[in-house]
Amino acid sequence: MQEQGFTLWFTGLSGAGKTTISQRVGEHLRQQGKKVEILDGDIVRQHLTRDLGFSKADRDENIYRIGFVAHLLCRNGVYVLVAAISPYADARQKVREMIGRNFLEIYVNSPLAVCEARDVKGLYKKARAGEIKHFTGIDDPYEPPTNPDLECRTDRETIEESVRKVLQLLALRAGQKHEILLR
Amino acid sequence: MQEQGFTLWFTGLSGAGKTTISQRVGEHLRQQGKKVEILDGDIVRQHLTRDLGFSKADRDENIYRIGFVAHLLCRNGVYVLVAAISPYADARQKVREMIGRNFLEIYVNSPLAVCEARDVKGLYKKARAGEIKHFTGIDDPYEPPTNPDLECRTDRETIEESVRKVLQLLALRAGQKHEILLR
Repeated sequence: MQEQGFTLWFTGLSGAGKTTISQRVGEHLRQQGKKVEILDGDIVRQHLTRDLGFSKADRDENIYRIGFVAHLLCRNGVYVLVAAISPYADARQKVREMIGRNFLEIYVNSPLAVCEARDVKGLYKKARAGEIKHFTGIDDPYEPPTNPDLECRTDRETIEESVRKVLQLLALRAGQKHEILLR
Repeated sequence: MQEQGFTLWFTGLSGAGKTTISQRVGEHLRQQGKKVEILDGDIVRQHLTRDLGFSKADRDENIYRIGFVAHLLCRNGVYVLVAAISPYADARQKVREMIGRNFLEIYVNSPLAVCEARDVKGLYKKARAGEIKHFTGIDDPYEPPTNPDLECRTDRETIEESVRKVLQLLALRAGQKHEILLR
């Protein structure tokens, strides 16, 4: 039987902790001998979507392309960790439908004020100054997941706690699948 | 040890036989228990590159994106079969550099006159009538590989012969890698 992969889709505001959590989760999974690919929004834009801007249509297209690649990897046994703001609920839903039950939506949730106070990349400052337009949370919308598979409140829990929750969810889902197969 | 994948890159004129050969090779590999993904130029354009046209820049971008996805799959143990005209030598070379030694360029070679006489999709007729512009071989260039890993002369050999040659090449390369690893 071919091992199945998973797609862990980390959505949330810039600075919420998507990249950090996905990288730590990836390290753990690699140590467990899993095949892992991290598709980080910023990096993917260089390879697959450099033509795209930040309108809704372009953001959605960005998400579909990442979703398509995640789908191909996932069905070949890879654990795909996607770290992308992915602000629109309908685009995330479309990707969920494409990938199916092995898609897990993880809401990396930190209030805007906290993300802005961190401002790791200095982007919020630029957005407030009007140097960056269409910045999610400032002058572009973010639609929070209404029913995510997991929520990490990164303003209240440590990175280690978030990472452990993700790994537990994954173990649970992988185990459930196993049970179903064994019946 | 993680099993390595390969990227078999089928390049050639429209109607030369890229899709047919790649599908047959894919069936054989699946029967051998390999993980297989076929990235067909026409299909990929729907998912990854629908924004792109047929200028050199757009064709090159199309090839890079397919190459990037092939790279991700290939390094996770998947046999990736790419069937895309990929008319420009420098774009193919760039993909070879990205993927490395597991990239195999297969020149599916049939003279233009033969491809045009077959005209499976009726595209040559439209191109000759000027209904399609930038059609490779008619009013857009094709740069043949100067040193492909394999050439299939589909005007002189049967599909079965071509498929067997591809599988033999693959067995040889996979075997060589094995030998090197065993030393």
